[in-house]
Amino acid sequence: MPPAPGDREARRDDVSRAVWQVLADKGFGGLTLRAVAAAMGVSTGMLMHYFPTKRALIAHALDLLEKRTAERPRRDRPADGLATVRAMLLDILPLTEGDTARNRIWVSSWDLALADDGLATDQADRYTRLRSTLRPHFEAARGLGEVPAAADPEQLAATAVAFTHGLVVQALFDPGRFPEDVQIAMVDDFLASITPSRPARR
Amino acid sequence: MPPAPGDREARRDDVSRAVWQVLADKGFGGLTLRAVAAAMGVSTGMLMHYFPTKRALIAHALDLLEKRTAERPRRDRPADGLATVRAMLLDILPLTEGDTARNRIWVSSWDLALADDGLATDQADRYTRLRSTLRPHFEAARGLGEVPAAADPEQLAATAVAFTHGLVVQALFDPGRFPEDVQIAMVDDFLASITPSRPARR
Repeated sequence: MPPAPGDREARRDDVSRAVWQVLADKGFGGLTLRAVAAAMGVSTGMLMHYFPTKRALIAHALDLLEKRTAERPRRDRPADGLATVRAMLLDILPLTEGDTARNRIWVSSWDLALADDGLATDQADRYTRLRSTLRPHFEAARGLGEVPAAADPEQLAATAVAFTHGLVVQALFDPGRFPEDVQIAMVDDFLASITPSRPARR
Repeated sequence: MPPAPGDREARRDDVSRAVWQVLADKGFGGLTLRAVAAAMGVSTGMLMHYFPTKRALIAHALDLLEKRTAERPRRDRPADGLATVRAMLLDILPLTEGDTARNRIWVSSWDLALADDGLATDQADRYTRLRSTLRPHFEAARGLGEVPAAADPEQLAATAVAFTHGLVVQALFDPGRFPEDVQIAMVDDFLASITPSRPARR
């Protein structure tokens, strides 16, 4: 029997929580109606009122990932230049349990996205936006002399995103090797390495 | 009817080629007996003589990924120090079609590995080995004055792996933004950034 409209509204949050839990445990590869139903202690039949197809379940999961990423708490942006870049990179890393779950789900989504032209374009656009968000702060850093005058802020943003996402993956697989303080020190060393006052080598 | 032993041997390479093709197109999320059978133009029943279970198919796919990675052509290791680090990092990147397929399959495997304790440990060990392979070359680079005397070769290796794998992911999603020459220039800029002869800032 389908749930009454009021119940249905009330249950939406429960469903999202269960979807998130399944994603955090098993990734998109383990996201099935059956797994979500089991996490909620309901029948798959009940869940089909929310997600008539696997595709609808995946679409909801991706929306939830976007939404939770957009709504996550963030550090203050302390000032122009590299201090703000630092805050933005730290906001990406898996430093807390919640950050770890979100990152684990993002990494999992790459398999799905690489197999689907539309999702791959969405992910490429997401990277373009992320670089665009960092770029003005690298421009400001250049104005402040925090990065070399000849540096290209767009390339610095691409390098910073590369370093940060690669650190995310290593830290997810080996949290003992990459605890919070090690991740933060690596970001600080990375930012220190792009500061200038040395002869160009190339 | 099961294939005769001779046919079976002869067909093993065809099966591996089909598995690789499915992985390159659809990732581990799309790896099914049906998809491999379709790629070979055979019945799933025939394929079940090779892979009685989904787990056997996944195990073969992971072995194949390890094997093709180990056997890939590599650049000469030109000299001690950063020149060798450079060759090793370039050997990782998706610079050719074959490199792109292999990287795409590795990234796809992370979803699977994060959901399985045994595979996650294998992946953490793989990262440890990769850092260990880079470390002596960073040590040599330190001896040559190519990196600061105070630098920790293990942390430099972790940073280099992070940067390289994060660049892999961005390049897979946006090959137009990250063609071969851009990836190589980013590696060169990254290596130039860790060279010394500037006052410490921290």
